[in-house]
Amino acid sequence: MSVFRLGLVGVGKIARDQHLAAIAATPGLELVATADPHARLDGVTDYRSLAAMLDAEPSLDGVAICTPAHLRHELASLALRRDKAVLLEKPPGATLAEIEDLRSLAAARGQVLFAAWHSRFAPGIATARAWLADKAVRAVAIRWHEDVRVWHPGQRWLWEAGGMGVFDPGINALSIATELLAPFFLRRATLEVPQNCQTPIAAALAFRTAAGVEIEADFDFRHEDPPCWQMRIDTAQGVLTLEEGGARLVIDGETLMEEPEREYPGVYAHFRDLLERGESDIDIAPLRHVADALMLGHRRAVAPFHD
Amino acid sequence: MSVFRLGLVGVGKIARDQHLAAIAATPGLELVATADPHARLDGVTDYRSLAAMLDAEPSLDGVAICTPAHLRHELASLALRRDKAVLLEKPPGATLAEIEDLRSLAAARGQVLFAAWHSRFAPGIATARAWLADKAVRAVAIRWHEDVRVWHPGQRWLWEAGGMGVFDPGINALSIATELLAPFFLRRATLEVPQNCQTPIAAALAFRTAAGVEIEADFDFRHEDPPCWQMRIDTAQGVLTLEEGGARLVIDGETLMEEPEREYPGVYAHFRDLLERGESDIDIAPLRHVADALMLGHRRAVAPFHD
Repeated sequence: MSVFRLGLVGVGKIARDQHLAAIAATPGLELVATADPHARLDGVTDYRSLAAMLDAEPSLDGVAICTPAHLRHELASLALRRDKAVLLEKPPGATLAEIEDLRSLAAARGQVLFAAWHSRFAPGIATARAWLADKAVRAVAIRWHEDVRVWHPGQRWLWEAGGMGVFDPGINALSIATELLAPFFLRRATLEVPQNCQTPIAAALAFRTAAGVEIEADFDFRHEDPPCWQMRIDTAQGVLTLEEGGARLVIDGETLMEEPEREYPGVYAHFRDLLERGESDIDIAPLRHVADALMLGHRRAVAPFHD
Repeated sequence: MSVFRLGLVGVGKIARDQHLAAIAATPGLELVATADPHARLDGVTDYRSLAAMLDAEPSLDGVAICTPAHLRHELASLALRRDKAVLLEKPPGATLAEIEDLRSLAAARGQVLFAAWHSRFAPGIATARAWLADKAVRAVAIRWHEDVRVWHPGQRWLWEAGGMGVFDPGINALSIATELLAPFFLRRATLEVPQNCQTPIAAALAFRTAAGVEIEADFDFRHEDPPCWQMRIDTAQGVLTLEEGGARLVIDGETLMEEPEREYPGVYAHFRDLLERGESDIDIAPLRHVADALMLGHRRAVAPFHD
């Protein structure tokens, strides 16, 4: 088996919590170096910038970009122009225009670009997809509730313009829904925005497919622990429920699957596969739905939020 | 010359003000019928719905959809599935997801889909584009100011969620900028939203190209007549200015072109050409920039607006 040599760009919380272990657990991937102006990892060669890493490590096959979203476009552009494959943490950019540009650039350079939506690799998703393939979906209800103080303590950027608020977890639900269901379109949205914040603390979204299936999504940050990350899909042939973000799969009340969360190993196994095949996987749909919701949604001011 | 037979869907203000005369002025196009539940035109066969028109007029080649934006996706889908070409007024849909779906559907059906951005057909645009082709752009300043009470009297929908506010004219500027310039990406946006409205009355946008060119756009509805619809493009080889929305083209202070506005005849000449060639023209970029601005922009509450 060939081994692909990777650099990690942005040594922050998500890199330490998820990416390192997932790379280590994936046969055929090797972490060679990191690039971060402020942080490093014990035992891994480190550079202060992506440019320095690319200059010093010409044999790198690709990079995983785990920086804040607004830095990803410039870094990914540089890596693609230097003929490196790129994995982007979610969301793949700060704007849709940036991601479209990266898609064009990757195609022009013949390089691999992977916009990773980690929730799509939750244990139950592939089985859910296979089960749904021959079913007639009638209605979908998504509930994605969590306590922001538990899951995002002190993350002030969430509440600033571009920070997405409750869409930061909500986009995970949308990444699963867009993976499992026929294309759907936003009809109405209500966004509850704390008076002292720029982004919603809760959102109620009503989508519809071309076939008329209604999809209701309800995101809320004001939920006491434990979180509720649930998607219920009613079909003519039974009810499928994904719970715990896809770690548990229930069909007609019977638990078909319940496994520990291991989304990031799935992300890197897929990246490995894309590298082997020289293919890209860039689905803008989850972020496009967020942009549609923020464009179309009716904003209602609610009580101030203090962390 | 072959003649393409058209139906007009939505007999409202824009259809009467612009589309009828433009179709009549375009050789090779013939208006056969209209579809509107509430309105009709003297001397033109009329139907109460698109479905009724398609049933009764099987020889139609295409339809122009001039309804409110939130109705366009369903109507355009129906027309494409019935193998009719489709022209969409701007914006081509209420959400980006809808437009992406129409793009896929048109490709799958092998049908012509034209997302019309009328400002791209202003007299000076083609000449500006040709002049810019071999110039090095250094900076761009867009000023799109008009008195909303003069140009949009009583249009309450502008101020409701999804109504886009000042982006309704601002998207015209963005449609010209995306036609003339290299791809650009939003860095910052400030949106001024009246306390009693959902959408901005003014917006200040800062974009940058991959080459580092700064593009500043300033949209404002609180401007006394006459309007200022101006774009200044500084290049290493001189300064190009489009005024009056593109009707006047000035290079280094010299007026190269000044012509009466005739954007819609240009729209229909292009649609005629697309029909002849069996090609589509679907550029999502202007609406994508609006969605990016509404996703990334910092909102500031300003004085209430009363029409």
